[in-house]
Amino acid sequence: MTDRFDVVTLGEAMIRLSPPNHQRLEQANSLDVVIGGAELSVAVGAARLGLSSSWVTKLPKNALGRRILNQAREQSVDVSRVIWTADGRAGLYFLEAGAAPRPSSVLYDRKNSAASKLAPGEVDWRFLKGVRVLHTTGITPALSESCREATVEAIEAAKKAGCKVCFDVNYRSKLWSPKEAEAVLTPIVKMVDVLIASDAATIWGVEGEPEQVLRELKKRFGIPVVAMTVREDSGVLRTRLSSIAIADKRYKGTKVYDVEVVDRLGVGDSFAAGLIYGYLRGDMQTALDYGDAMAAYKTSIPGDVNYATKEEIDQLVESGENLRIQR
Amino acid sequence: MTDRFDVVTLGEAMIRLSPPNHQRLEQANSLDVVIGGAELSVAVGAARLGLSSSWVTKLPKNALGRRILNQAREQSVDVSRVIWTADGRAGLYFLEAGAAPRPSSVLYDRKNSAASKLAPGEVDWRFLKGVRVLHTTGITPALSESCREATVEAIEAAKKAGCKVCFDVNYRSKLWSPKEAEAVLTPIVKMVDVLIASDAATIWGVEGEPEQVLRELKKRFGIPVVAMTVREDSGVLRTRLSSIAIADKRYKGTKVYDVEVVDRLGVGDSFAAGLIYGYLRGDMQTALDYGDAMAAYKTSIPGDVNYATKEEIDQLVESGENLRIQR
Amino acid sequence: MTDRFDVVTLGEAMIRLSPPNHQRLEQANSLDVVIGGAELSVAVGAARLGLSSSWVTKLPKNALGRRILNQAREQSVDVSRVIWTADGRAGLYFLEAGAAPRPSSVLYDRKNSAASKLAPGEVDWRFLKGVRVLHTTGITPALSESCREATVEAIEAAKKAGCKVCFDVNYRSKLWSPKEAEAVLTPIVKMVDVLIASDAATIWGVEGEPEQVLRELKKRFGIPVVAMTVREDSGVLRTRLSSIAIADKRYKGTKVYDVEVVDRLGVGDSFAAGLIYGYLRGDMQTALDYGDAMAAYKTSIPGDVNYATKEEIDQLVESGENLRIQR
Amino acid sequence: MTDRFDVVTLGEAMIRLSPPNHQRLEQANSLDVVIGGAELSVAVGAARLGLSSSWVTKLPKNALGRRILNQAREQSVDVSRVIWTADGRAGLYFLEAGAAPRPSSVLYDRKNSAASKLAPGEVDWRFLKGVRVLHTTGITPALSESCREATVEAIEAAKKAGCKVCFDVNYRSKLWSPKEAEAVLTPIVKMVDVLIASDAATIWGVEGEPEQVLRELKKRFGIPVVAMTVREDSGVLRTRLSSIAIADKRYKGTKVYDVEVVDRLGVGDSFAAGLIYGYLRGDMQTALDYGDAMAAYKTSIPGDVNYATKEEIDQLVESGENLRIQR
Amino acid sequence: MTDRFDVVTLGEAMIRLSPPNHQRLEQANSLDVVIGGAELSVAVGAARLGLSSSWVTKLPKNALGRRILNQAREQSVDVSRVIWTADGRAGLYFLEAGAAPRPSSVLYDRKNSAASKLAPGEVDWRFLKGVRVLHTTGITPALSESCREATVEAIEAAKKAGCKVCFDVNYRSKLWSPKEAEAVLTPIVKMVDVLIASDAATIWGVEGEPEQVLRELKKRFGIPVVAMTVREDSGVLRTRLSSIAIADKRYKGTKVYDVEVVDRLGVGDSFAAGLIYGYLRGDMQTALDYGDAMAAYKTSIPGDVNYATKEEIDQLVESGENLRIQR
Amino acid sequence: MTDRFDVVTLGEAMIRLSPPNHQRLEQANSLDVVIGGAELSVAVGAARLGLSSSWVTKLPKNALGRRILNQAREQSVDVSRVIWTADGRAGLYFLEAGAAPRPSSVLYDRKNSAASKLAPGEVDWRFLKGVRVLHTTGITPALSESCREATVEAIEAAKKAGCKVCFDVNYRSKLWSPKEAEAVLTPIVKMVDVLIASDAATIWGVEGEPEQVLRELKKRFGIPVVAMTVREDSGVLRTRLSSIAIADKRYKGTKVYDVEVVDRLGVGDSFAAGLIYGYLRGDMQTALDYGDAMAAYKTSIPGDVNYATKEEIDQLVESGENLRIQR
Repeated sequence: MTDRFDVVTLGEAMIRLSPPNHQRLEQANSLDVVIGGAELSVAVGAARLGLSSSWVTKLPKNALGRRILNQAREQSVDVSRVIWTADGRAGLYFLEAGAAPRPSSVLYDRKNSAASKLAPGEVDWRFLKGVRVLHTTGITPALSESCREATVEAIEAAKKAGCKVCFDVNYRSKLWSPKEAEAVLTPIVKMVDVLIASDAATIWGVEGEPEQVLRELKKRFGIPVVAMTVREDSGVLRTRLSSIAIADKRYKGTKVYDVEVVDRLGVGDSFAAGLIYGYLRGDMQTALDYGDAMAAYKTSIPGDVNYATKEEIDQLVESGENLRIQR
Repeated sequence: MTDRFDVVTLGEAMIRLSPPNHQRLEQANSLDVVIGGAELSVAVGAARLGLSSSWVTKLPKNALGRRILNQAREQSVDVSRVIWTADGRAGLYFLEAGAAPRPSSVLYDRKNSAASKLAPGEVDWRFLKGVRVLHTTGITPALSESCREATVEAIEAAKKAGCKVCFDVNYRSKLWSPKEAEAVLTPIVKMVDVLIASDAATIWGVEGEPEQVLRELKKRFGIPVVAMTVREDSGVLRTRLSSIAIADKRYKGTKVYDVEVVDRLGVGDSFAAGLIYGYLRGDMQTALDYGDAMAAYKTSIPGDVNYATKEEIDQLVESGENLRIQR
Repeated sequence: MTDRFDVVTLGEAMIRLSPPNHQRLEQANSLDVVIGGAELSVAVGAARLGLSSSWVTKLPKNALGRRILNQAREQSVDVSRVIWTADGRAGLYFLEAGAAPRPSSVLYDRKNSAASKLAPGEVDWRFLKGVRVLHTTGITPALSESCREATVEAIEAAKKAGCKVCFDVNYRSKLWSPKEAEAVLTPIVKMVDVLIASDAATIWGVEGEPEQVLRELKKRFGIPVVAMTVREDSGVLRTRLSSIAIADKRYKGTKVYDVEVVDRLGVGDSFAAGLIYGYLRGDMQTALDYGDAMAAYKTSIPGDVNYATKEEIDQLVESGENLRIQR
Repeated sequence: MTDRFDVVTLGEAMIRLSPPNHQRLEQANSLDVVIGGAELSVAVGAARLGLSSSWVTKLPKNALGRRILNQAREQSVDVSRVIWTADGRAGLYFLEAGAAPRPSSVLYDRKNSAASKLAPGEVDWRFLKGVRVLHTTGITPALSESCREATVEAIEAAKKAGCKVCFDVNYRSKLWSPKEAEAVLTPIVKMVDVLIASDAATIWGVEGEPEQVLRELKKRFGIPVVAMTVREDSGVLRTRLSSIAIADKRYKGTKVYDVEVVDRLGVGDSFAAGLIYGYLRGDMQTALDYGDAMAAYKTSIPGDVNYATKEEIDQLVESGENLRIQR
Repeated sequence: MTDRFDVVTLGEAMIRLSPPNHQRLEQANSLDVVIGGAELSVAVGAARLGLSSSWVTKLPKNALGRRILNQAREQSVDVSRVIWTADGRAGLYFLEAGAAPRPSSVLYDRKNSAASKLAPGEVDWRFLKGVRVLHTTGITPALSESCREATVEAIEAAKKAGCKVCFDVNYRSKLWSPKEAEAVLTPIVKMVDVLIASDAATIWGVEGEPEQVLRELKKRFGIPVVAMTVREDSGVLRTRLSSIAIADKRYKGTKVYDVEVVDRLGVGDSFAAGLIYGYLRGDMQTALDYGDAMAAYKTSIPGDVNYATKEEIDQLVESGENLRIQR
Repeated sequence: MTDRFDVVTLGEAMIRLSPPNHQRLEQANSLDVVIGGAELSVAVGAARLGLSSSWVTKLPKNALGRRILNQAREQSVDVSRVIWTADGRAGLYFLEAGAAPRPSSVLYDRKNSAASKLAPGEVDWRFLKGVRVLHTTGITPALSESCREATVEAIEAAKKAGCKVCFDVNYRSKLWSPKEAEAVLTPIVKMVDVLIASDAATIWGVEGEPEQVLRELKKRFGIPVVAMTVREDSGVLRTRLSSIAIADKRYKGTKVYDVEVVDRLGVGDSFAAGLIYGYLRGDMQTALDYGDAMAAYKTSIPGDVNYATKEEIDQLVESGENLRIQR
């Protein structure tokens, strides 16, 4: 195995605990356990599409840290750059799956996590030499001061190494305010090659239709590629998914997916993985189409991890949906 | 703690047993257990909205009786007036959750329950002095002859104590016929201050649109406030909820909720709790809006008990729905 | 008990293993177990409607064979003609329940099953004397060479005994190609009295609207009765069901059911059971209406077996849907 | 199928509801469902050993009645003599599985069950002609006055038909007092051919070692065969099982089983089934050895029903225990 | 309801998360949820024995805080003195249930919990006036500096109010070292009226048999009553429980319980609750006997909370064990 | 990562399906899924102890094949040499967990598995150059003729490459007879460096105490190291574990573990992993002690995979058992 990964991602993964059967957390007597975290999900998504990927994070030396690691390894994500620490904790989040009019909701319990203590200087980023894409999201710098610095360090190292940078804004209102996010993310997005801007409007106060928002962001920050998923929710359990991007020209996802929602988490990360897949093939239309197909497929699968196969995604992109039972 | 409760409710709560995952009872190998009962649900709903509430019933001295009591206490409902009995049984009901074209269905096994043996003279109703609302439903007098008498006794005591009486018709065709119900309920509804008449048309043979039904009932029985939920089902798993009332004038719920159904039980009781909340604030528009919001929220929560928080209901009433995941 | 059954069916039943909660097989840590098999499901469906039925198959002498047998016996299906074998295995299939855009999908693991080793000469088909209908499907001859011969043997014996033959095409693309199916099934369908042709178009390359397909098949093969279910899927979890038939004249199902899908398996078999029920009453309109009601009801029930009661189906046919909770 | 069954049993079967994982009923959020009832368990046990058996009872016409029936049919027990009633209920019992020092405990909720309403004249007992053994237990006459009479009616019919009568005392302190039991059972036991007297000492105040108790009962009531299981509990989860009998001479079970308890219910009924099996082969040593093996095997199986195979019991009796994993 | 509680306890309760079926945390896909915390368990145990109890703690204002509160209220524990905070988190602990040679093991995740931020001055301890016993444990001062001070504040207030102080050493090696514990606990134990010293030897380096340890502690710190449970483990799933105390004279538990372990957590707290019950009746023999019975019963019940009834404990103390199934 | 693994193992892994809670397969409504296979378990065990390991097998290209692969990758076992095939199936086995007197039992359904089709020439065994130990078991050659040849091919390649060969007899009576096993295994064991001979007596008809058996096998086949686990079962749920070996001299495990059995599967493989660990450290006493500790720990963990950590095993070996809860 080589270090010249197609994709390297940086960020936290957490133990996700969710009450079964649409229960509220207050009434739960058992919680389902999966592993969730935006950047790990992208690394897994990329691996499912046949790319080689590596994930960089900091994990606590205990059973929960091992549980998280197992999920990454299971999906063939390289973990050789993971840092272990004796005193941090595993970040947790509790997910309540809603139904209209009750939205799904996340209760974070991730303060003082091992990952939030990641600091500049801990990772030798020279290994990005030969890597094709570094991906991270707006969650990582939201975790802590040291994470902010580590994120900038990583992106600067990528630029130096000739590695493209993909960045998903991923605004989390429970972690910071739009204002805080703006201050931290503005210098970052100026460095990125691909920006996924689904939540960008809130932060930079850009108004208008998706296309306008993207055009404005592209212009304001000088970003080569900006993309965005477009959702129309007709309930918590039913949504329509598509996407657009502005690069050399405007692109739109070929299909709009009418999706029956099993699990909303990790959908944006599946979009990112598909987008990177197409971007690395040098074709933005493919990027959106794989992004949309990955996102739509993920929505039908419980957990944050996208257990779609490349064959399934290829077929969805090429032949479109077939909802009849396969037998 | 004082005895001057905002709300006192009277009625039976049962062990509810339901097969998971839309199974039929005939094929079930395990049954989920929750506690259900209209008047307990109203007491809980009121408590969730910040009112003080007490629940009056009769329970069997065994593990099932304790199980029921625990549910009430857990939700801060006062149980100091509960009567214990050595020989009755806990009422049970089996719930099959349907999917179109199969309706959800209840199999009652509540005959000879401890609650059905509640008799006049067992509760010292003078404690209603200072209580603001007594709530009960058409189920209580349907349980037995002695329950009929106890219901009348309670309502008369309330009138005497200056406590308002709220009554939900709650017609149950598996307990009695419309004719039996009419004979028993007619003298009762003439005494009430607030009538929830969602199932009234069947009993009193009043035809027409909801508004007409309410106007007719108000007039016929001289009731100060009559209200009703309005549902349009587009399946077993999808429904639209709203409400109307006639008091000093006609009121309509501000919103119509398009609801993804997780559990249909206890929805009317959540409406009643919200209605009482607004009624006690002296505002019928608030009454309907809290009733509708409580009902819609409940539909998204498994079990009979409404685990909504007051903050969530306030927000739903004030800002309307936001179906995006909260994180 | 007599041997003069209303219905005898011939075919394989399998252990069905499915991950709960829309999980993918790759991520499952437990699998739900039910018994599935087209012809057993028809025998059960017939029994639920009050017909006497017997099921012919070959089962392995082990716990899994007993598990399958138990399901048949539980539903009052006669198993006195079941053949036991010491060395075969129980056929299995893994079912993934999908959600749009991911279809439900079956992974068969049924090769070398005991049932696939059923051979001509093993069953003394003279017991069909006095039986009213023999039912089998296109799956049985797809299992093996010997099963093909056994199927033909059974059908010929039925013809000789004056027993009507009902045959459901049930094309399974994971078992054989349309071409293989055509070669085997063409001589078979020429012998049948009732053909359920829902999947026939693929095999015989007949194009057009359902009615045209049925007319063409009827004419081409000289079949007295041809019928077909008609589905419109608006997702994996929502579908519309109806049916048509051509016999002495054209028939259409009286209702179109808008169905919330709990489990898509066994739906066609429930249609077949209802169809046979009506056919034996000599009324094709009843046949379609019971077929549709059985199919729609089944879709709301987990597992392959239709736990509807005859009373429920009678009521659905006679009074139509009532989606309000029954209590 | 003939009516000349090897064994006919008479009695109630109930829905058994038990909290998983040693939970107490008061804390349970789900309940496991199995079917339990002494006489049904004996009919099943006999069928598992290859005897033909039929079970006589009265069931309510609802989903719970069908659930109970399914269990009997699944195990090949004839149900053609079962009586259906429109207004009774299904008997229930709640089982808490204990661990030392907390004993397992049953909460009965079986009053007014359909079975308790079985009355003389409802069953045409002439069908016992040709039947080899009628089995019932002290539970049936404890259910109600009419059940007492029906029990006597059945036993007298058996005597007349030349059918042997096997009776298990099965004293249940939660149903009646020793004194009541004595009054009712004394005339009954005088008619029986085989008495299983494991709980007899309490009722008739017979003291001493098992052998003395049996000798005394045999003499006092003139019973041809009296038998008894002998247990030594070293905890709730560990017990030692054996048995003795007095017939033409004294018999002792060949082995003492050191048993790891999975489920204590139905163990005595498995003993009875094994005993009847040997008794019908005319060999009391075989009777005790099959009784003990069936009882010991049952203890290792969850639920009331004994899913042992005849091959397993034969091997246990013939070769003794082999605790190594079989692979 | 009055404020003159029999028992007031002070300390943290946590969400306990444990993998089912002896799984390791690293392999778990779901976690069972119960509420655990030494001082809450004592308040509940006291309430189960008929004493009035109140629990003082600090809880976070979120679903997990409510979940914890619900457990207390469910068991009739007064929560009127609970302090709510907007920014703390709910303490968690992960429990792995072992089997020899693998011990059960706890992974704490309780740092920065709301409870750990409890500080002196937040509770108006004058409400201890009229309270009979204040109970807390060595865990509370181990949580934080401010908790140490709050503990001392509470104990001093109790002394002033004439309220007896019961203190359980409860040494937790994962929270602090013996040395740290000694420094903090030494001044505390000098104030207490009843010391439960099961883990005291480690802290104060007192060696020898239980009786010697107790005598030494009593003398060294001048404590009126010192008590201790005595365990002999013959595995993780089997243990023997008894106790001794030194007060006016030496006491020993009347029985030694041979216990089949379902759940080891909360056992010491059940002992404490029983001890307090007897202590308040003024009888140290009763104190030990109720302590032992409560402890032994608890071991058979899953979760931290002791769902024994007073009747069961009375009977165990008075009549001893009866391991036969109760029916 | 390098190819110079400490351990390479060769063999099949299967989907293991087991009914929960000691149910029998015949009564199961769900099955727990884990991955099991002797040689994979050894590779995992070695990895848990810090060795680098690789697993060679043949897997079917479907969801079940991926499920198996995921388990290996999750545990850091290299899978770069795994062969994928389009037409084989995943081997399955059904496990019933017993309780005395019912032994645990395996029902294999592994015929025609992908792994059984592994043939010589498919793996380029030159990669064993630099590998320290090749481990396989008597199961692999029992699978098929081609597997026999592939096994011999691998062992011969190992000898050539200077890689030590460890072989576990692992006799499976459900796969072949002792006679067949003897014919195939005799030439194999003559080549091995370390033989684990726990089941050898049956095959080669060697009688006597473990030590005698080992001495005889060592002499007869000229094997440098022969070892064996020694078990005494006092039930299905309780066993005592130890081991002996003959190398340069006789060794005995330092401790005898009294084990509470959670899961008996994979215990021998954990012994093998520990043995290899010590063997590679050049110390047979360490080999037995780590083998025993790994085996004992595994018995307490559900599933085939040993989720012990190296720290836990080190501590067990060095300090012995501590059964008190760790907190």
